[in-house]
Amino acid sequence: MGNQSKGLIALLQLNPTVGDIVGNAQRLQEIVGDAYSHGASVCVSTELAICGYPPRDLLMQPTFIQIAQETAMNIDVKIPVLVGTPTIPEHQREQPGNGVLLIGNQAPAKVVARKQLLPTYDVFDEARYFDADDRPGIARTINGSFELGVTVCEDAWQVSGETPSEYDADPIEQLAEWGRQGVELDATVNLSASPYHAEKIQTRLHVARTAAECLNHPFLLANQVGGNDDLLFDGRSLAAWPNGDVVIAPAWEEGILLIDVNDSTRSQWISIEGKKSTGLTQLPGGSELVQDEETVLEALADAVVLGLRDYCRKSGIKRIVLGLSGGIDSAVAACVACAAVGPENVLGLSMPSRFSSEHSKSDAKYTAESLGMDYASIPIDELHHLVENQIESVLDNGSPVARENIQARLRAIIVMSHANAQQRMAIATGNKSELAQGYCTLYGDMAGGYTPLGDVYKMEVYGLANVFNNRAGKEGKDAPVNESTLTKPPSAELAPDQRDDDTLPPYTVLDLILKHHIENGLGADEIAATGHDRETVVTVLRRLEANEHKRWQMAPAPRVSPRAFGQGWRHPLASRHDWRR
Amino acid sequence: MGNQSKGLIALLQLNPTVGDIVGNAQRLQEIVGDAYSHGASVCVSTELAICGYPPRDLLMQPTFIQIAQETAMNIDVKIPVLVGTPTIPEHQREQPGNGVLLIGNQAPAKVVARKQLLPTYDVFDEARYFDADDRPGIARTINGSFELGVTVCEDAWQVSGETPSEYDADPIEQLAEWGRQGVELDATVNLSASPYHAEKIQTRLHVARTAAECLNHPFLLANQVGGNDDLLFDGRSLAAWPNGDVVIAPAWEEGILLIDVNDSTRSQWISIEGKKSTGLTQLPGGSELVQDEETVLEALADAVVLGLRDYCRKSGIKRIVLGLSGGIDSAVAACVACAAVGPENVLGLSMPSRFSSEHSKSDAKYTAESLGMDYASIPIDELHHLVENQIESVLDNGSPVARENIQARLRAIIVMSHANAQQRMAIATGNKSELAQGYCTLYGDMAGGYTPLGDVYKMEVYGLANVFNNRAGKEGKDAPVNESTLTKPPSAELAPDQRDDDTLPPYTVLDLILKHHIENGLGADEIAATGHDRETVVTVLRRLEANEHKRWQMAPAPRVSPRAFGQGWRHPLASRHDWRR
Repeated sequence: MGNQSKGLIALLQLNPTVGDIVGNAQRLQEIVGDAYSHGASVCVSTELAICGYPPRDLLMQPTFIQIAQETAMNIDVKIPVLVGTPTIPEHQREQPGNGVLLIGNQAPAKVVARKQLLPTYDVFDEARYFDADDRPGIARTINGSFELGVTVCEDAWQVSGETPSEYDADPIEQLAEWGRQGVELDATVNLSASPYHAEKIQTRLHVARTAAECLNHPFLLANQVGGNDDLLFDGRSLAAWPNGDVVIAPAWEEGILLIDVNDSTRSQWISIEGKKSTGLTQLPGGSELVQDEETVLEALADAVVLGLRDYCRKSGIKRIVLGLSGGIDSAVAACVACAAVGPENVLGLSMPSRFSSEHSKSDAKYTAESLGMDYASIPIDELHHLVENQIESVLDNGSPVARENIQARLRAIIVMSHANAQQRMAIATGNKSELAQGYCTLYGDMAGGYTPLGDVYKMEVYGLANVFNNRAGKEGKDAPVNESTLTKPPSAELAPDQRDDDTLPPYTVLDLILKHHIENGLGADEIAATGHDRETVVTVLRRLEANEHKRWQMAPAPRVSPRAFGQGWRHPLASRHDWRR
Repeated sequence: MGNQSKGLIALLQLNPTVGDIVGNAQRLQEIVGDAYSHGASVCVSTELAICGYPPRDLLMQPTFIQIAQETAMNIDVKIPVLVGTPTIPEHQREQPGNGVLLIGNQAPAKVVARKQLLPTYDVFDEARYFDADDRPGIARTINGSFELGVTVCEDAWQVSGETPSEYDADPIEQLAEWGRQGVELDATVNLSASPYHAEKIQTRLHVARTAAECLNHPFLLANQVGGNDDLLFDGRSLAAWPNGDVVIAPAWEEGILLIDVNDSTRSQWISIEGKKSTGLTQLPGGSELVQDEETVLEALADAVVLGLRDYCRKSGIKRIVLGLSGGIDSAVAACVACAAVGPENVLGLSMPSRFSSEHSKSDAKYTAESLGMDYASIPIDELHHLVENQIESVLDNGSPVARENIQARLRAIIVMSHANAQQRMAIATGNKSELAQGYCTLYGDMAGGYTPLGDVYKMEVYGLANVFNNRAGKEGKDAPVNESTLTKPPSAELAPDQRDDDTLPPYTVLDLILKHHIENGLGADEIAATGHDRETVVTVLRRLEANEHKRWQMAPAPRVSPRAFGQGWRHPLASRHDWRR
């Protein structure tokens, strides 16, 4: 628009902890201080930044809403800040709003917006908690004299058609209409908590460009980063201009995206974690974001590492223990664990039985040593024999799966004993493909407080192995996943010469069938029509349904791929953080 | 009103299986046939009878909605039937309705109502799935020429103020207003799926009387019965007249409540399960439903038995295995299991360790023998020693809880081996009080597919023991829970001379604190103000929060008491039934 600059708008890419209102407020205050010292005139937080997203049924406690809003109102800042907070309803039986508070504006703190479009599908349940507003917000800031349209996450999605819900309103179109009627806005901001999955950034990019074009002014989106329970947020806050120019912040780290609304090239990324940041992505109008397979896998690796790291950090867990079978899944899970909490805090246990091959033991040891984690080998053969002897007649006359499961459950006892004795969290090492098929043992290899690869398909686990090997190589270290682990046929090693493909289709086939169903919502006939054997497809889908109960007893797994249907694997864990402290 | 009778209205108290559309339709057709043969002119089903309640995220699959409505439309009936079904939305991006279809009315099947008030709190999530209608329904039946107001569950609750939500509409008041404007209705019917908890019947009674009084005509409510996942429905369909007369059907069984709207005394209960039914409860206007403690405990016993029975039946599970410790919880769980699936299908395992007292072993054996269930004793001492030897240094240098948990987990291996070998479902025997405090072992005594006492406070478990003992006495059998089990101090017997009250407050105190918090939503200060030691209260509430993660890995437990906050223990299990068969 060629106006003289009014100053910089800081999009705060925050990583709040669900329920930790006091901690989130302190952190927000610090980061606003950083933004101020870098010349920001105004700050914009993420959605519900004061209590973290998703707070789920904490929102049903009126005290929680009250403490959240009041804490947000009392944050001491030097410049105006738009803070995402649940807002106290005006009448007792109304629901709170998913709101935005303007603080530090040389006037009493004021609610300037409440979310209009409440997503209630897939992992979202906002109609359960909030009342919707009927108009977008506008904030006028003393500092810089900005006039800003204010929207919250989903509010900006209707205009691009990228949401599955039919809403009665389109907040972006409403703001655009106000613009046509003479309301002059410098920009529209959007406070988001938009979860990650592999293809999400492309969708978000489309949303932002469509919004900026419709508004005919810059559209600035601050997105949450980090893991909360089973949800991962990638950050990648962004700004889009009406001509299609876009600036995208890095993923997987807290920081500040400084925007000059009059000049996209003056955007800056302030990293506040002190890490070597990948810096900003600048996309001129008309150009697309190209992500090759390697970039996608690198992001997936970062996602699962941050998911586990945040789960531990936010729950006060310092150390991890896991079983190391010598197979690909536990090797990659070990890589994730070491990256998340440091190899000095990870213990890997090899627990060979009579069915364990020699390479299993040596491969497990190799992985542990190359990662520099603690390692012990505890054979379970003697225990296995003793259990079998004690219930011999039951096993002789029953389903063979009982015999197989005993080994997995004995290993769980040993892993959990280390967890309990040493205040470690056990992690389960299973992948999405085998968990989807119930090819796993409840209270056995499914035991653990978190399942880092639980939403990662088997073939992607191989991809992650290469990522971690490459990363080790760049640091001059040995590849943690050796050739033997990468190339041997997958086996649970719970019976003689057992191979996964005795029971399951090859993972290259299984993964595709599962993706068609879970991510695209296709039924058996539709999947068969894409070129798969119908009988195989039906078997896979039946196993998927039959094992739903088992999966519900699985620890949270970070969600990294989209779902056609919501309920499937939505994990209900509410915040563990004590907001009343 | 003194009109001549137009015939009888049959309220069908149905026990549908979530997702089993074809099976539910067949059963509905049979029961309509029964009602017809008993002289009914019109039938009224329960809410979403075609797919069972709660279908949860199955409702997000358009195919599911389509099959449900089309199956409902094609049920072959001789008289008009109001069938609860999700209804296909008119436009692609709209949500389905929670609707009512009129079939068998000598005209094409027709949607006559869609729920207006969508409860979205506690165990309900209906705003997630449905679009609300803006007016109540009216159905005109050929047979009997009835003019009926048609509402669905929550629709009738606003008028009495018994719902926590603030709705914009009051369907009962709308129908009453139509009545004042000259629309003559014979009655208003309500299709319900109103879950049980101990005090719920009193609330429902108030709702029904208020509705009938407001409408100035009879109000007839057909309520679902049976267990679906963690929700229990007690039935107790009822009819209320404007003068306060009420007729209540029995709980815990399928059947038909036949109502003559002109004469409450002509009401009949048709039991279709062939059991000795308790028959109808007739309450004249002005009189209250008095329930003594024994009645409440009897209902609780029926509730947990039906919950487990339905969970097994609807999931195709025929046989059960559980650990029998000689303590009160496992003894009562065994009573529940034997009542649910028959003692011939229940196996109890005593698994003494070095810490097990003599009375533990003899009490366990006594309970098994008096119930007539299968029983085996499998000592775990040798296994326990072997595990301890293999990880001696870890145990010697770590938290003592690791040592205790090993025993519980070895028992889980043995229980699960029997389950896997013999196609039994393991049940976890823990009670709500100890589970709330995390006084239980994950992958140990928490292992199992269902937790029948998981929502029953410890002191109520004692009450249930007396109920089952009395029932045995009436059948001339030995009391299954002996004096020793009833009177010895509760102990986990995982360490020498261990007692629960070494760690927990006495259960009489603990249960009250938990109830104050979980059911009434009181915080620490408020609970202390009722006369409890504040430090004890704080400790209890902190343990409750800290163990949330553990509880989320618990198998479903039937919900038998109210909650102040929803999320707490809501179990997310979606239907296991294959609706695509």
